[in-house]
Amino acid sequence: MEVVSENRSFGGRQIVAKHPSDACGCDMTFAVYLPPQAEEGPVPVLWYLSGLTCTHENAMSKAGLQEHAAHHGLAIVYPDTSPRGDEIANDEAYDLGQGAGFYVNAVCDPWKANFQMYDYVTDELRGLVERTYPVTDRHGITGHSMGGHGALTIAIRNPDRYHSLTAFAPITNPTCSDWGRKQLSAYLGDDETSWTNYDATLLLEEHGWKGDILIDQGASDQFLDLLKPESLSAAMARRRQPGEFRMQRGYDHSYYFVSTFAGEHVAWHAERLI
Amino acid sequence: MEVVSENRSFGGRQIVAKHPSDACGCDMTFAVYLPPQAEEGPVPVLWYLSGLTCTHENAMSKAGLQEHAAHHGLAIVYPDTSPRGDEIANDEAYDLGQGAGFYVNAVCDPWKANFQMYDYVTDELRGLVERTYPVTDRHGITGHSMGGHGALTIAIRNPDRYHSLTAFAPITNPTCSDWGRKQLSAYLGDDETSWTNYDATLLLEEHGWKGDILIDQGASDQFLDLLKPESLSAAMARRRQPGEFRMQRGYDHSYYFVSTFAGEHVAWHAERLI
Repeated sequence: MEVVSENRSFGGRQIVAKHPSDACGCDMTFAVYLPPQAEEGPVPVLWYLSGLTCTHENAMSKAGLQEHAAHHGLAIVYPDTSPRGDEIANDEAYDLGQGAGFYVNAVCDPWKANFQMYDYVTDELRGLVERTYPVTDRHGITGHSMGGHGALTIAIRNPDRYHSLTAFAPITNPTCSDWGRKQLSAYLGDDETSWTNYDATLLLEEHGWKGDILIDQGASDQFLDLLKPESLSAAMARRRQPGEFRMQRGYDHSYYFVSTFAGEHVAWHAERLI
Repeated sequence: MEVVSENRSFGGRQIVAKHPSDACGCDMTFAVYLPPQAEEGPVPVLWYLSGLTCTHENAMSKAGLQEHAAHHGLAIVYPDTSPRGDEIANDEAYDLGQGAGFYVNAVCDPWKANFQMYDYVTDELRGLVERTYPVTDRHGITGHSMGGHGALTIAIRNPDRYHSLTAFAPITNPTCSDWGRKQLSAYLGDDETSWTNYDATLLLEEHGWKGDILIDQGASDQFLDLLKPESLSAAMARRRQPGEFRMQRGYDHSYYFVSTFAGEHVAWHAERLI
């Protein structure tokens, strides 16, 4: 593993590192924020999964999570959103291929050789983080848009490994959305039964989630038709799923929305992880 | 004036606007954050002047000032750092011409036609902001690096118009630095007596500042040789200038440094402006 950069931030360390990934078959870059409390002993981890077109860098520089993580004593991990490189399969569209891994394990060519983001995030990178940094085995997960979809599906499928769950404007029902059908078809093939493992609404209806869930969604989000907040909120209500689905007046899909509610999400995770 | 974008942020409005500038002879873009309190009545203004290579956008998306401005009820104005455009003079170096206006009024060709950033910030944009948005005539000023130089020199020269003053890692003594001599020579000519109006250390030694000043400087800043914090800190001490010069262990020159101390700077201004 190679340290790409390190910046002091709110008394802690904002680190970017690169490592060869077995799951993705290429070098992967990620960021990790270690709060000041990590100098004294291991701290819990909050995973932040980013949205379409993002790298590890967007949320690291714009979501403003560090201040709150330093206050509560949580580490933050910011994975990339896909494998990357000239040798890696890609598509001209912004919403397929590099920058658009959708946190799935691809089974179709040309994607399956590298697009194993589900395994990468849940297993390989988690192991690397736990071996490298002073963190505990208490992990929470959140994300924005495509990353909210990732957070919800990963947590619901792995309730023993994640102890808190929130999302910002998540893609909630990709099997029924143009942000989903195209990608699940490309990565997983045309048999839609295999898609259900990657659909937060369907997973929640079947399994629920052991804890309570916090979702924030901007009421003026320009992508409401693709995110389908009504699918997940209805599933939560039908399932009697403990949690809060908050429709925030006037907010759009940008990092100005994410940063506004970042403090409440970090506090939510801290309360459940520490 | 044309509104380029507006995003809800911490209950307020993060606006980007473009207007034809008389001072700069071209269209200029700036950002303004209006806190929720501005819905109820006029609020004081904090000016944030950015550093080399930046536009209005860098600090707006990375400095994290909005959360604190919303808490205290201050508007933030983020000007651009120079005139811009294909018709505008430029230089291949990152530290001269577009993105590097140094907040001076140029008197030499080819710069003088457009590089009037001192007048633009102190007069034209201020007037536009006061006419357009619900703000009071209580203004504070801060900035980072070249923008810290701008904040210090503008406030010291206009004590009747600015009521609070802080800076992040400012260029303190440009008449004695490679971040300064090259630019002042290009913009103002070889007569160094005219440069003293744009040197914070020299201005402070001569005039002092009516209020107290807060300066934060990273002890691990990669540009310490160019910023020369010792010049300004010595001038403050010689002048018996009330204020705090804080050398922050481990911090570099990045926005991770700025965002870490953004809350304390906004609180400092709020205490003196409201």
